[in-house]
Amino acid sequence: METIYVIKIGGNIIDDDNKLNSFLRSFSEIEGKKILVHGGGKLATEISSELGLKTELIDGRRVTDADTLKVITMVYAGWINKTITAKLNALSCKAIGLSGVDAQLIPSAKRKKQEIDYGFVGDVQSENINSGLLITLLESGITPVIAPVSSDAAGQLLNINADTIASSISGALAKHFEIHLIYCFGKKGVLQNVEDENSLIYQIHPAHYEILKKQKVIDKGMLPKIDNAFDALRNGVKKVVIGHAGNLNAIIKNEINAATIITNAEPVIA
Amino acid sequence: METIYVIKIGGNIIDDDNKLNSFLRSFSEIEGKKILVHGGGKLATEISSELGLKTELIDGRRVTDADTLKVITMVYAGWINKTITAKLNALSCKAIGLSGVDAQLIPSAKRKKQEIDYGFVGDVQSENINSGLLITLLESGITPVIAPVSSDAAGQLLNINADTIASSISGALAKHFEIHLIYCFGKKGVLQNVEDENSLIYQIHPAHYEILKKQKVIDKGMLPKIDNAFDALRNGVKKVVIGHAGNLNAIIKNEINAATIITNAEPVIA
Repeated sequence: METIYVIKIGGNIIDDDNKLNSFLRSFSEIEGKKILVHGGGKLATEISSELGLKTELIDGRRVTDADTLKVITMVYAGWINKTITAKLNALSCKAIGLSGVDAQLIPSAKRKKQEIDYGFVGDVQSENINSGLLITLLESGITPVIAPVSSDAAGQLLNINADTIASSISGALAKHFEIHLIYCFGKKGVLQNVEDENSLIYQIHPAHYEILKKQKVIDKGMLPKIDNAFDALRNGVKKVVIGHAGNLNAIIKNEINAATIITNAEPVIA
Repeated sequence: METIYVIKIGGNIIDDDNKLNSFLRSFSEIEGKKILVHGGGKLATEISSELGLKTELIDGRRVTDADTLKVITMVYAGWINKTITAKLNALSCKAIGLSGVDAQLIPSAKRKKQEIDYGFVGDVQSENINSGLLITLLESGITPVIAPVSSDAAGQLLNINADTIASSISGALAKHFEIHLIYCFGKKGVLQNVEDENSLIYQIHPAHYEILKKQKVIDKGMLPKIDNAFDALRNGVKKVVIGHAGNLNAIIKNEINAATIITNAEPVIA
């Protein structure tokens, strides 16, 4: 099966012009089919604050009221999405900027109120992803660039999680392609000690993950990313890697210990 | 040849939720292939003002400095584009929100400084429009919704004119389809007396247009729209109409005197 790279970048890369340009250059040089999923960044918080809106985060997740939803849609699906898309086109990587709204690419449903009301936040309906559109675009030589905004069946816009998008579309495409899913962020991978870049964990398999969680080695922000990684593997994704955006080339070349590999395979004990 | 409707709506419809919803319902009911091009609205000006930026208009055209470009991209390609797209999807009209940036749909070049420097404003490169993408989407039953933001070859985002987009993509598609281009705004059409809705001019042909211009019957805001209309006709577009957004159904049904028809045909003199 043909390989497709699904690569997700977070806010720390988007917020830094040099890092972003360097990442996009590496991304554009990947041969073959690829998809870029991006998160937000500080700009949404900055604009909210300039507009006099307060940003409320609970466990690192933004509470999205109506005004915040407007800012997020403007910043993520507007400024960030079109800036990245224009830059990729200028690098001769023909890119199309999309959100989950477009052609119902990633339908979602508003999260039910539980103890915490996150507001206009949606849960991805993985089974309804429009993978046909992605395949049509990829077959035409076009690279989709996806912003984490979606809508429900009634047309209500919703804020969705970019890590989950990357996992869900990887799973949806895994029937047709060999999918390599790469989460890029500002650290070398999952670290044994979050302060020490030399403490990279090279591989995490399910039993290992349970231990790391019990030991509280993995911090709260990393847990949903790894859960999303295992979801992708369960859905047939070939390979999931968590690594530094600056190491994209090494990760693509499968260099040893360039990042953390998430795997379903039990380790071989010598 | 199969018919495609290319319909452009302006800010006055976008700014009013009831008008927008009613227009989108009519639009979604048009059978067959269709494209929606939207302009901006008051929101960009409001947000600019809340962010402490001043809006400068010269002859109704916005001067686009770097901050204003950011606001325009956020509001036009982000909030307005995704709001309209989500609403159309909810009306069972499968829509995809795009800008001129996406898959180099509408390449543009930064306007050279003349007496007036409009800033980050682009002129559409009509000959490079990616009509293949539009055709692929339309053949897949997807309706493109296009925001007036583009980029140049170096990846610089640019503000472009929505009337010109509508004319240019109509011209680019006219080789393959019978194109009906409809400019929808807040008046019944081109009026002899702009204050009097009963003074509708039913038809404008080139000789007539020259007279109206000399008589200064047509105001400055309307001139580029009519120039765009004649450009479209010169490029093989079958029919161009300027009318009220609330009359879309009547215009589509070709009801007599529902709007102003722009035509290259000389009138028959009895």
